[in-house]
Amino acid sequence: MHTSNPILAQAWRGGIVESAHRGAWAVVDADGTLHSSAGDIHRPIFPRSAVKVLQALPLVESGAAERYGLTDAQLALACASHGGEPAHTTGAAAMLAQAGVDVQALECGAHWPYRDVTQREMAARGETPTALHNNCSGKHSGFVCLGCHMAGSGDARGFLRGYVQPQHPVMREVTAALQASTGYDLADAAVGTDGCSIPTYAIPLRHLALAYARVATGQGLRPGHAAAAQRLRAAVAAAQRLRQAVARAPQMVAGTGRLDTRLMQRLGERVFCKVGAEGVYCAALPTLGLGIAVKMDDGNNARACEVVLAGLLARLLPLEGDDAAFVRGLADVPLVNWNGIEVGRLRASDALRTAA
Amino acid sequence: MHTSNPILAQAWRGGIVESAHRGAWAVVDADGTLHSSAGDIHRPIFPRSAVKVLQALPLVESGAAERYGLTDAQLALACASHGGEPAHTTGAAAMLAQAGVDVQALECGAHWPYRDVTQREMAARGETPTALHNNCSGKHSGFVCLGCHMAGSGDARGFLRGYVQPQHPVMREVTAALQASTGYDLADAAVGTDGCSIPTYAIPLRHLALAYARVATGQGLRPGHAAAAQRLRAAVAAAQRLRQAVARAPQMVAGTGRLDTRLMQRLGERVFCKVGAEGVYCAALPTLGLGIAVKMDDGNNARACEVVLAGLLARLLPLEGDDAAFVRGLADVPLVNWNGIEVGRLRASDALRTAA
Repeated sequence: MHTSNPILAQAWRGGIVESAHRGAWAVVDADGTLHSSAGDIHRPIFPRSAVKVLQALPLVESGAAERYGLTDAQLALACASHGGEPAHTTGAAAMLAQAGVDVQALECGAHWPYRDVTQREMAARGETPTALHNNCSGKHSGFVCLGCHMAGSGDARGFLRGYVQPQHPVMREVTAALQASTGYDLADAAVGTDGCSIPTYAIPLRHLALAYARVATGQGLRPGHAAAAQRLRAAVAAAQRLRQAVARAPQMVAGTGRLDTRLMQRLGERVFCKVGAEGVYCAALPTLGLGIAVKMDDGNNARACEVVLAGLLARLLPLEGDDAAFVRGLADVPLVNWNGIEVGRLRASDALRTAA
Repeated sequence: MHTSNPILAQAWRGGIVESAHRGAWAVVDADGTLHSSAGDIHRPIFPRSAVKVLQALPLVESGAAERYGLTDAQLALACASHGGEPAHTTGAAAMLAQAGVDVQALECGAHWPYRDVTQREMAARGETPTALHNNCSGKHSGFVCLGCHMAGSGDARGFLRGYVQPQHPVMREVTAALQASTGYDLADAAVGTDGCSIPTYAIPLRHLALAYARVATGQGLRPGHAAAAQRLRAAVAAAQRLRQAVARAPQMVAGTGRLDTRLMQRLGERVFCKVGAEGVYCAALPTLGLGIAVKMDDGNNARACEVVLAGLLARLLPLEGDDAAFVRGLADVPLVNWNGIEVGRLRASDALRTAA
C-alpha cells in the first residue's frame, strides 16, 4: 500500500475527528463493467467470510442441498458468520444429522459464541462451546453435506477427513466455484489459512464485486464455453436459491443486532450482504444488477466497513421513507458511553454519503 | 488528516500484507527536546485512558492518598484500565471504603468486565456488574478520594455529586494537572466526553510524550515561576510514588494477559506504559529520561498500538538476553486461528524494528 487509499469513515468526538479509516470499494455490474470505485481495487485482498455464498454454490449446484432436504434457514446458515445463538447451533447440528453425520465431522474448531449475551447464558448453565458454536459452523456443515454427497456410497467419514485442506475434493469444488464466479486465476493468487482452517485466496475488490454482481443476477457464474448449459442453469438456480434463503432467514446469516441481519430483515431481497474479517464487506443488489466489494486498510474491526457499506447502499438503492432513513442512519451511528451518553459519531465520509 | 501518516504495523497472512495500520509517534525528553518521531505529532488527539497517571497526580500531591492510606496496589488501580477481575473490584471498593464512601459515589457507569473469563465466571454465579467492574473504577475511586479530601469537614457526598463534570472542583484539579504536565493550553483544546463520562481534551503527541518524560524524571511537572517550591517537590514525589506503585503492582494496571501488565511485570521500573482507547499508547522510560506517545489513525483496536509500542521499546531500551527477546517478541506476534494453527503475523513495520 504505497499510495494512500481515501478516508472512507471517521469517528468524531468533541467536534473533531478522533480516528479515521482508509479503504477502497468497487461497484461492478454482471457484465464486468466498473460502475464506480474509490481507492485501489486491484490489490488482491483476502475476502475471508465475505465469499461464503460463493463457497456455498457447489452445495446447491451439486444437488446435495436437495438430497439432504436443507431448508431456507439451513442454506442461509451455510452462508453465515453467525453469533452462536441457539437457532444457529441447532440449525448446524440438524444439517449434519440430515447428512447422516454429526459435530465430530466438523474441522473448523470451537470457540465461544460471538454474541456476548449467549456466552453468558451458556456460562450460567455451565456449558462450554463446541464446533457448532464456531461462527463458521454453518458453512462447514454445508461443506460436510457436499462431501457426504460426493462420497456417494462410500465411507462418508473417511472421505470427509481433511476436507479443509486445499487439495481435498470438497475444497477443490469450493475453490473452483470461487474461481469461476470471480473470474480471477486462483492458481497464481496468494493463499493463506482462514480462521476456520480452510484456504483463503487473495482476490482484488474488482473481481469480488463482479462475483457479487453475478450472484445478484445469476449471470456469468460459470462462464466460458466449457460450461455445459445444464451446469450454467444449475449455477443460476443455485444463486437464486441462496439469495432467497438468506432473504427469508436473515437471522441465520449473522444474528441478533448484527448489521447483515438488520439490513436484510429490512430490505429483503433488495440486498444480500456479507461481512468478512479484516474489514471486508460484499453485497449483491439484484434489483440493480450490481455487486459491491469493500476493504478497509486497517482491517481489524467491523465498525468502519459497516458504515461504508451503509453509505454505499444509501447512494445506490432507490429507497424511500422509512427504508431510506434506516439505511442513512446506519451510515452515521452514535457512539454511546457507559452511562448511555452520546459522546461521538461514526460516519461514512462525505464522498460516500452525498448522492451520486 | 490530509497527508498520510506512515504505516507503523502490518498484519501478514499467506505471505502478503492483509491489513496495515498508519499512525504517528513521538519520543521526547524532559527538557522538551524531540528525540525522534514519525508522522504528524502536532495534530491534537484524545489521549483517553493513556493520561490516567497524569490525572492521578492530584490524588497524591494533595495528600489524599496518604490520608486514606492508599496502598501501592490502590495507587496502581488509580492509573488503571483494568479487566474487572476480583482483585480490581475489591481494590476499588476498598479505596472507597477507606475514604468513608462506597460504590454509590462512582459516576463512571457499569459494564461487564473487559476480561471475558471473568465475565463468564460472574455469569456462572448469577452476578451482574456494578460500577466497580467498569475498567475506569480505580481512576474514579481516586477522584472520589480526592473529592472527599477536598470536601474537608463538609458533606462529602454532596460535594462529590457531579464530579465528572468539567467545572467540578475535583475535575478542575485533574485538568490543571493535565495542563501543567503537558504544557498544552487546554482552554483552547477540543473537548469531548470519555467513555467513563469525564472530559477528554485533545492534545498533540508531542505534548503527551513530554508529559510522560516529566513523569519519567519528575522534572517539570509543575512548571513556571508560579509553582511554589513545595508544590514542585510534591509533584516530583507524586510522580515517583505512582511510578513505583505501578511497578510493584502491575497486575492492577490492566490484568491477566494484558500488555501493560506483562511489560511491567517483566521490566519493572524501566517502563511505565499505559494504553488508551482509540489506539493510543504512552510510556515513560525513567532510566532514559524519555517519554513516548503513539496514536494509530484508525484507532479502534489495541492490536496495532501494542506492536508499535513494543517496537519502540525494543529500539530505545538497552535490553539483553531474555528481556530483549521478550520485548522483540511483542513487536512480532503470531495470529492463531480457532484450531491453534498459526495463520499470520502482526508486526511493527521495519522502520520501527530496526535498531536506531
